[in-house]
Amino acid sequence: MNPIDRLTEAFEKFPGIGPRQARRFVQYLLSAAPGSRADIAEQIKALGANTAQCSSCYRWFPIGKQASNGARVGILCDICGDSHRDTATLFVVEKDADIDNVERSGFKGTYFVLGGTVPLAAEEPARHIRLRELQKRVAENKLGEIILGLSATTEGDHTRNILQEVLKDLGKKISSLGRGLSTGSELEYADPDTIASALSSRS
Amino acid sequence: MNPIDRLTEAFEKFPGIGPRQARRFVQYLLSAAPGSRADIAEQIKALGANTAQCSSCYRWFPIGKQASNGARVGILCDICGDSHRDTATLFVVEKDADIDNVERSGFKGTYFVLGGTVPLAAEEPARHIRLRELQKRVAENKLGEIILGLSATTEGDHTRNILQEVLKDLGKKISSLGRGLSTGSELEYADPDTIASALSSRS
Amino acid sequence: MNPIDRLTEAFEKFPGIGPRQARRFVQYLLSAAPGSRADIAEQIKALGANTAQCSSCYRWFPIGKQASNGARVGILCDICGDSHRDTATLFVVEKDADIDNVERSGFKGTYFVLGGTVPLAAEEPARHIRLRELQKRVAENKLGEIILGLSATTEGDHTRNILQEVLKDLGKKISSLGRGLSTGSELEYADPDTIASALSSRS
Amino acid sequence: MNPIDRLTEAFEKFPGIGPRQARRFVQYLLSAAPGSRADIAEQIKALGANTAQCSSCYRWFPIGKQASNGARVGILCDICGDSHRDTATLFVVEKDADIDNVERSGFKGTYFVLGGTVPLAAEEPARHIRLRELQKRVAENKLGEIILGLSATTEGDHTRNILQEVLKDLGKKISSLGRGLSTGSELEYADPDTIASALSSRS
Repeated sequence: MNPIDRLTEAFEKFPGIGPRQARRFVQYLLSAAPGSRADIAEQIKALGANTAQCSSCYRWFPIGKQASNGARVGILCDICGDSHRDTATLFVVEKDADIDNVERSGFKGTYFVLGGTVPLAAEEPARHIRLRELQKRVAENKLGEIILGLSATTEGDHTRNILQEVLKDLGKKISSLGRGLSTGSELEYADPDTIASALSSRS
Repeated sequence: MNPIDRLTEAFEKFPGIGPRQARRFVQYLLSAAPGSRADIAEQIKALGANTAQCSSCYRWFPIGKQASNGARVGILCDICGDSHRDTATLFVVEKDADIDNVERSGFKGTYFVLGGTVPLAAEEPARHIRLRELQKRVAENKLGEIILGLSATTEGDHTRNILQEVLKDLGKKISSLGRGLSTGSELEYADPDTIASALSSRS
Repeated sequence: MNPIDRLTEAFEKFPGIGPRQARRFVQYLLSAAPGSRADIAEQIKALGANTAQCSSCYRWFPIGKQASNGARVGILCDICGDSHRDTATLFVVEKDADIDNVERSGFKGTYFVLGGTVPLAAEEPARHIRLRELQKRVAENKLGEIILGLSATTEGDHTRNILQEVLKDLGKKISSLGRGLSTGSELEYADPDTIASALSSRS
Repeated sequence: MNPIDRLTEAFEKFPGIGPRQARRFVQYLLSAAPGSRADIAEQIKALGANTAQCSSCYRWFPIGKQASNGARVGILCDICGDSHRDTATLFVVEKDADIDNVERSGFKGTYFVLGGTVPLAAEEPARHIRLRELQKRVAENKLGEIILGLSATTEGDHTRNILQEVLKDLGKKISSLGRGLSTGSELEYADPDTIASALSSRS
């Protein structure tokens, strides 16, 4: 395959990108100054060297030069390494981007990134999410509560059921995010489950 | 104005209808059999004779032939007239269609239809919603709780604030629907307020 | 069925209207003043009395009081009755609304409204469009050219093929609208047929 | 800025990509195997070495190993270097991707890529498109016709006017793509200009 088609194929694997937009990306790079192209390439290549995955919450985070020269096993992100956070509360999220969003809501506990959800037909959940890592984390830590922050979707519900089953014998309080009207929604378009939840969590 | 343009203008006032679709409606009626046109006209005309507005919740409902011959003052809809409903709980909604939706969630109390929301700039709320009717209803009834079921929008919040202010001295418990993740929503796209609400109503 | 559900069903048959919007229409009418409701009903009912179908182009048009008292057979719309129009050119369109649009382009000939297109699987085209009326019109008039103004869709193409077949022995010039880039379209998103047409009609 | 934010910013400059999707790209790369990340980086870096810009039409195209070792000045793409193409007809397009599309329509001439369109407020058109390169190309070649294949948009029209002005004294036939109904469009939604064009290019 020629280099233009090959890179187009690589971009097609980017989340949400189809063939036409992938080709536009390649055209964009072809028209870009060679220097800026080399710069992006360098950044992508260096992503591994300049970032680390937190050994506690499993999210990716940037690391300084010094850190990147030393050992990167057991390294903690700025949230997990912050002694002022409430380590008794663990917020389990699907992906890294969820953390940024939860932080904005003022949550002061710690996180664990599952790395996805479990498809309904999946036979081995541990191949889709960090199930064993979560079990280990929950067993190790002196946790008071585990909040399951999954999407309010069928696959999110399925994943929550699996987590509840797996974690139930570890003797921790397990809670789920409240359902209700989310900002911007109207009663006329809400589904009965959401209304029932909004009714039971009224205040 | 000619009859085609006049009816087009009338349809433009229908909710969500622009000039082009209004004209399509007229074309549809022009091409329809005269009988079916007369039938729709008759139905629209008879809407007043065949329906009544509930004197308790203010929603519109169909009435039988017998009822329509008699007095229609003080007539109750099938929910307000049902002695098995929990009359101690009043669910305040914006519009008739909301009731159908809340019914599907299994709610067994009674309703009050505000007839809309109060625009942010409005100086006289009572010109936009049934404020006096609600005050009267709340004062008359032996209500234990008033649930404010407004949209989770800026105008819905504004209207709720007005209702809370107006109702606060009547000595009833006033609650609002819980906020949280509504069915189908993902944590990544939820706003901080919704996440904070979902956190505080976790269970 | 109760009057609210019945009228909702009637509105669901309006072009482009689903159950939810149909119900909103009924709510809108229920909340409207009885007078305005009666007015719309009257307008719909009177549509037949205040409009006529042109006996030449078959479009619907408003008629004055006088006209509506007299005979309405053989009545002509303002375009077909205008002696300054070019009666040698006949523009065949699918529906009434197309005429308004073609008029804006400055066309000065006359029209014929087919009343739709012929579905691909249809066995009797004359049940879907005014085929016999068109044949009669073409035979009667001293036409120099018939312009087939059908949609650039599969069903439009199918209908055009049928018309070309039916009209070919009547000895008139038959033309079709040019294809090409329509306003707002970009070369990157145009299909090969459109580009080929745009190329052959370049100027 | 940290490496995650920096790469996010770089992706935000990709065509059609906003901050949220740019961040998703970075997350995708962070979760990808280091090998596949290095592979994409290598491909982007090598884009310059494995591709060349045609010295005649200015589009980018992949080159073989051999070619890439030798001189790349004056190199021709496979269309411009094809002796069977009609070199008397030059199709001027906005961008590389347009060529793929025009090729599918069966065009057998040659191309010139402008590299964009000229914004309405731009004072120096040559800063936005390859104006001087086009003038040179038109002067050099024994062209019979120049087809201006610009978008049917305001900016496309503006650019076409500039090209017509600049090229008018070079003594070549200059044509523009025909306007008309593009595939899929309906008469009812066509603008008057498109209908007028479709009428004048009817056949």
